[in-house]
Amino acid sequence: MGGDHGPSVVVPAALNYLSDDPQVDLILVGREEAIREHLPAGDLPDRLSIQHASEEVGMDELPSRALRGKKDSSMRVAINLVSEGVADACVSAGNTGALMATARFVLKTLPHVDRPAIMSVLHSESGRTWVLDLGANVDCSADHLFQFAVMGTELVTAVESVDNPSVGLLNIGQEEIKGSDQIKQAHRLLAASPLNYIGYVEGDDIYTGDVDIVVCDGFVGNVALKSSEGVAKMIRHFMKAEFTRNPLTRLAGLVALPVLRSLRRRIDPRRYNGAPLVGLRGVVVKSHGGTDAVGFANAIAIAKKEIQADLASRITARVEQLLDPDSDPGAAEQVSL
Amino acid sequence: MGGDHGPSVVVPAALNYLSDDPQVDLILVGREEAIREHLPAGDLPDRLSIQHASEEVGMDELPSRALRGKKDSSMRVAINLVSEGVADACVSAGNTGALMATARFVLKTLPHVDRPAIMSVLHSESGRTWVLDLGANVDCSADHLFQFAVMGTELVTAVESVDNPSVGLLNIGQEEIKGSDQIKQAHRLLAASPLNYIGYVEGDDIYTGDVDIVVCDGFVGNVALKSSEGVAKMIRHFMKAEFTRNPLTRLAGLVALPVLRSLRRRIDPRRYNGAPLVGLRGVVVKSHGGTDAVGFANAIAIAKKEIQADLASRITARVEQLLDPDSDPGAAEQVSL
Repeated sequence: MGGDHGPSVVVPAALNYLSDDPQVDLILVGREEAIREHLPAGDLPDRLSIQHASEEVGMDELPSRALRGKKDSSMRVAINLVSEGVADACVSAGNTGALMATARFVLKTLPHVDRPAIMSVLHSESGRTWVLDLGANVDCSADHLFQFAVMGTELVTAVESVDNPSVGLLNIGQEEIKGSDQIKQAHRLLAASPLNYIGYVEGDDIYTGDVDIVVCDGFVGNVALKSSEGVAKMIRHFMKAEFTRNPLTRLAGLVALPVLRSLRRRIDPRRYNGAPLVGLRGVVVKSHGGTDAVGFANAIAIAKKEIQADLASRITARVEQLLDPDSDPGAAEQVSL
Repeated sequence: MGGDHGPSVVVPAALNYLSDDPQVDLILVGREEAIREHLPAGDLPDRLSIQHASEEVGMDELPSRALRGKKDSSMRVAINLVSEGVADACVSAGNTGALMATARFVLKTLPHVDRPAIMSVLHSESGRTWVLDLGANVDCSADHLFQFAVMGTELVTAVESVDNPSVGLLNIGQEEIKGSDQIKQAHRLLAASPLNYIGYVEGDDIYTGDVDIVVCDGFVGNVALKSSEGVAKMIRHFMKAEFTRNPLTRLAGLVALPVLRSLRRRIDPRRYNGAPLVGLRGVVVKSHGGTDAVGFANAIAIAKKEIQADLASRITARVEQLLDPDSDPGAAEQVSL
């Protein structure tokens, strides 16, 4: 049980979640004594169980070291439970790199999927935008980007019940120096596919809400995400500095407080916490390391929707249909996205 | 004379600038009659002249088409003036891709510099951060990234009179999948150089102000910049929506107005308008297409500092010293950055 706060956040979050959702059973994986500290004394609540794991993966630990050296980490044990069919999904607030490496090693990728990706949802002016990959794959071929688009489409269809979500390929504006060869080739693959591909989008399009899914390689996606977080943090910093500059501005801040609170709710990162690792033979959702019970519940809810939609089968079927050269070419006609 | 507003912004901006800075002569390049419309009737003001150019490059025009087809565009004529030694610098609010292509074709790159780059300065919590490249080069080798670091160091030293500005290489956080081979190799080159290299930085580090110069390829830099703009715009959008929601929130907005105005001033993009094209045999500064007189004056001021510091010679000397295998290796010791 990882994340920045460990059981002190995850255990209360699980209890909260159980009381809100009668359909789900939760297994808490980690050091049993540490987990019990945050549970009410006596018998375990209904639909809650504990799976002891003696080790933990540190937030800064190298993924390969975690994978090789910590066979009894809470992360490894939780993913094993998915692999064994005991659990339907693993939700973790732990080390992202280690989670992806372990999930990939234990669960394996889906047929016809070369690389799993990390997908996340960001606020936009008119709602939200899903972006993948956010850091699992540094260099991506056109085929990888195409597969991300397929997986993203299936995930958004499943999790949001949106038919035919739109897909944009992240690029830069200058006409002639537009993108690398991989991006141009991915553009051709997407344009020829039955996906709802709307063409190239730029960094700022993530936040307008005019596209449902933005596809990019993990390096670019990670930089876009981190830069965005940096700007938002800087604006918050300046806002605080301005409103606390002197007694008069403090007073203005007091008057504006309810409005500033609504603003904060609008861009509350917890609302969209939960980054699915897509392309694996099993459901794994990464929760933000520093989230609280509200955010964690959101991550569990995403995992539940993936399970209910049987996302893995959907992705397999769709990728097979679109990528497998041996599949019936006529079949593509019969499927509506 | 390009940009979103053409002479209606650039001419008043030039007049303003001249009255503030007695050291600079300005040549307005564009359609003479269009320029004259925005000038006071009668003789031209002191230190102002007009160079007629019959064509204009459109903001969405393909760079190659502008370069081949518009030999008498204001952009081309302005850069020719620099090439002929008539002007010391060209400041343009026009099409970035065409400006770079034309400047590269007419002025050529500096010795030992493979590719010029676009550099810009962004707000940060504690001041500002310079970033390059912002879109001129999609795929960059380790050598290119290294040259960007050298050019960026010389520019910041010249324009800001900062000794030994710090340089960070943009990367993503996950340890083992960190960066591409080019980035790892650039990291080694930078670490072994006499530059003030502080190592890898992430997207959010651009906005903390802990580093003076962030180096990345043009694709990543452009996405980081555009994503950041997108987030800032979204926050402004939400802020406006919240403060205009009902009479009560409008009242709160009125009370908070002075504070919100100071906030806006803090993140005013005009303060940092002016993106130098570095690595060319001549000074070229790109002004934002939509800026006003204040922003345009800033771009001229950056050009002036580049001229005064003789940036091209500084970059040539520094790149030669650091990259040329034939140069005296002992010389590196004598130079303090």
